[in-house]
Amino acid sequence: MKHARKELVFDTPERRAYLNITPEVQAFVRESGIEHGLCLVNPMHITAAVYVNDAESGLIQDYDDWLERLAPHEPISQYRHNNGEDNADAHLKRQLMGHQVVLAITDGRLDLGPWEQVFYAEFDGRRRKRVLLKAIGD
Amino acid sequence: MKHARKELVFDTPERRAYLNITPEVQAFVRESGIEHGLCLVNPMHITAAVYVNDAESGLIQDYDDWLERLAPHEPISQYRHNNGEDNADAHLKRQLMGHQVVLAITDGRLDLGPWEQVFYAEFDGRRRKRVLLKAIGD
Amino acid sequence: MKHARKELVFDTPERRAYLNITPEVQAFVRESGIEHGLCLVNPMHITAAVYVNDAESGLIQDYDDWLERLAPHEPISQYRHNNGEDNADAHLKRQLMGHQVVLAITDGRLDLGPWEQVFYAEFDGRRRKRVLLKAIGD
Repeated sequence: MKHARKELVFDTPERRAYLNITPEVQAFVRESGIEHGLCLVNPMHITAAVYVNDAESGLIQDYDDWLERLAPHEPISQYRHNNGEDNADAHLKRQLMGHQVVLAITDGRLDLGPWEQVFYAEFDGRRRKRVLLKAIGD
Repeated sequence: MKHARKELVFDTPERRAYLNITPEVQAFVRESGIEHGLCLVNPMHITAAVYVNDAESGLIQDYDDWLERLAPHEPISQYRHNNGEDNADAHLKRQLMGHQVVLAITDGRLDLGPWEQVFYAEFDGRRRKRVLLKAIGD
Repeated sequence: MKHARKELVFDTPERRAYLNITPEVQAFVRESGIEHGLCLVNPMHITAAVYVNDAESGLIQDYDDWLERLAPHEPISQYRHNNGEDNADAHLKRQLMGHQVVLAITDGRLDLGPWEQVFYAEFDGRRRKRVLLKAIGD
């Protein structure tokens, strides 16, 4: 069995950002030499999510509006976690979007449907964050 | 290490549908010959989800009502993605339900709890959709 | 390829509870002897979730309040599943929190970020429940 590990690093200038990281994950899989296996894509921080969906700017704005409606940033005082912090909403938003994804590797490549793109969703940016890539297979 | 891959194909007559695919996934695992491993069940389309929960018709209706409340289909114009499309809500609903699942394989079978059933949730049907099954193990 | 399997058992006195199970998962990984691989942490019951987030009591209360707002327990009669049951909300809450997680194993340990902790979220306690741990790797 082969295995590979890599960290991607992000530091977004905005509090919230949605970054298409499909090329980086694809490159990692290629470098791993794994032909058939599974690849975990997991934010190492708890105020960010990794999800799979469409690389379409209108949809990304829809996600952002919707997450703000279901888990609003303000008023900050509505959350008990915001005791010296202001990022409680980011912990909630990341659960809504699904936290992490596992991707299939087939014939040495990510086995994605026609519109599946891998996104890093930052909900508490303006600091250094990491995403863990871990692949196993043959 | 062994690996196996299969696509399930769906074309539901309704916009939204909830299909119990546990027998199909179980059959795939059996055919793979894998005794111990992991099985990814992943919709290849971004307006559908795969989730694990109860095969109980009242609950399925509860899920449908609840998803409509948290991510309503109408008015279509509330979503920026609906520019020539009408399926933005489907992209939201699929994130709520959790996108994909990974299942354990033990002694050649899906290692499920007593009520765990695997569902394909379609939120933008009336077209051909695929679900990817990928298993690795020994 | 190595593989390992274990069940954790819980029986919480409250209907809802949030238990940090990181030490139990870490011990399982150590006992497995797997140096590099993936570890699935999956509730075997459909009214509970496993998620990764902060071990901070204010945040846990925020999650509980928020889940009650998005998927309230009462009135029980609002759910069709509650036909002799009262736990429909628990099936909804578990989907919101994300059901299950897959964790990377690196150098024989869980490969977690600085604040990542693994939680068992019980939404319909006061009965015996199990969580499945399944790891594969080398």
